[in-house]
Amino acid sequence: MADKMTLIMFSGDFDKAVAGLTMATTAQAMETEVTIFFTFWGLNIVRKRKTGKAKRLFLQKLFSLLNKGGAGRLPLSRFNFCGLGPFMMKLLMKKKNMSDVEKLLQTARDLGVKFQACTTSMEVMGLKESDFIDGLITECVGAATYLKYAKESAINLFI
Amino acid sequence: MADKMTLIMFSGDFDKAVAGLTMATTAQAMETEVTIFFTFWGLNIVRKRKTGKAKRLFLQKLFSLLNKGGAGRLPLSRFNFCGLGPFMMKLLMKKKNMSDVEKLLQTARDLGVKFQACTTSMEVMGLKESDFIDGLITECVGAATYLKYAKESAINLFI
Amino acid sequence: MADKMTLIMFSGDFDKAVAGLTMATTAQAMETEVTIFFTFWGLNIVRKRKTGKAKRLFLQKLFSLLNKGGAGRLPLSRFNFCGLGPFMMKLLMKKKNMSDVEKLLQTARDLGVKFQACTTSMEVMGLKESDFIDGLITECVGAATYLKYAKESAINLFI
Repeated sequence: MADKMTLIMFSGDFDKAVAGLTMATTAQAMETEVTIFFTFWGLNIVRKRKTGKAKRLFLQKLFSLLNKGGAGRLPLSRFNFCGLGPFMMKLLMKKKNMSDVEKLLQTARDLGVKFQACTTSMEVMGLKESDFIDGLITECVGAATYLKYAKESAINLFI
Repeated sequence: MADKMTLIMFSGDFDKAVAGLTMATTAQAMETEVTIFFTFWGLNIVRKRKTGKAKRLFLQKLFSLLNKGGAGRLPLSRFNFCGLGPFMMKLLMKKKNMSDVEKLLQTARDLGVKFQACTTSMEVMGLKESDFIDGLITECVGAATYLKYAKESAINLFI
Repeated sequence: MADKMTLIMFSGDFDKAVAGLTMATTAQAMETEVTIFFTFWGLNIVRKRKTGKAKRLFLQKLFSLLNKGGAGRLPLSRFNFCGLGPFMMKLLMKKKNMSDVEKLLQTARDLGVKFQACTTSMEVMGLKESDFIDGLITECVGAATYLKYAKESAINLFI
């Protein structure tokens, strides 16, 4: 079992994103090869604030009115209160000199963490590679590719 | 570490069920032996729509008024809106020729994925083996049996 | 891969705490060395009901009005209804002679399960070691220490 770790980032919650990305950057800094597989709501973390103008189904457009992307406006899994919770949490984290999600994403990529976007979720939600923050995603792959990485990893977590 | 994977299916959410079952069927198709341990709300995924007439405690009956089973009416972990969210999601998945939860369950079993139901959760919720969809559950077991499988598996996820 | 297991206890929900602690005590009783890393909302599980009088930031005080500790008053991840859900669930568990969270915590520690509290989360929430139930926490550590344990463990779960 090699010195590798994978995370399935299923959740798009602010607090879970912070937890996952903190684990990822810490592990990668300790010379563990980390791969994050972003799927479902987790894709919101790596999406641009504004979705592209690609042709999408009516249902996808309707859904995207609710399900907005952007690392800067993720909800809190608890005490969200229409954004007041994450706002307070971010203030607190800033006071403690902790990185926010945008910064954590960049640090993870700079350290060499691999970012995979799930093609099946992209298909359902009508997202294109250009909808993700530039330079962040390493590859768009299916579950089979993720599983190949997971099999070789000592640590696999579903977040 | 053999070529095995286990999932603890704790959540009864539609989106998490789709994610877990997609992982399971993909892995099993790649010749990984997969075991899913359904526990707590996760048991709703493999329950029949109608619970049997077995004698149950008053509290269990009260609880079952809220906590309904059936792969066809699982809520979405986000944007549920009394069932509108899952309804839209299912329409979208159909348009994209993706399998729904009922189909994924059947495919998983046909491929040879093992389905375990957690006896402790069944006891608390007052569920009998006959409350599960016929032919789906391989065995009703406790945490100790699940852990034996997990120890031999390269990938273990809590969903 | 040694006979070890780690759990990241991220959630502070009653049902997930029961699931995690049941896994932990069962595994430890089967001679698997278990380490639980309590982080974010998970810290509520090991907190005393009353937070200490330590100097805290205004934001931390505000947040602690919402985010209360104490194994005896954790919410349910579903059907919470202001505490009615967990109340019913606890009655049911008592009827079935199952341990509640306080008892499970004590059993886990008596069996030798290691309890780690995440220092980063403690910092953000303004929690001191004295805010945790006496004698429960083995050590306050960061993600790097958790990862060292996880790398040596056959089973790692994020709850």
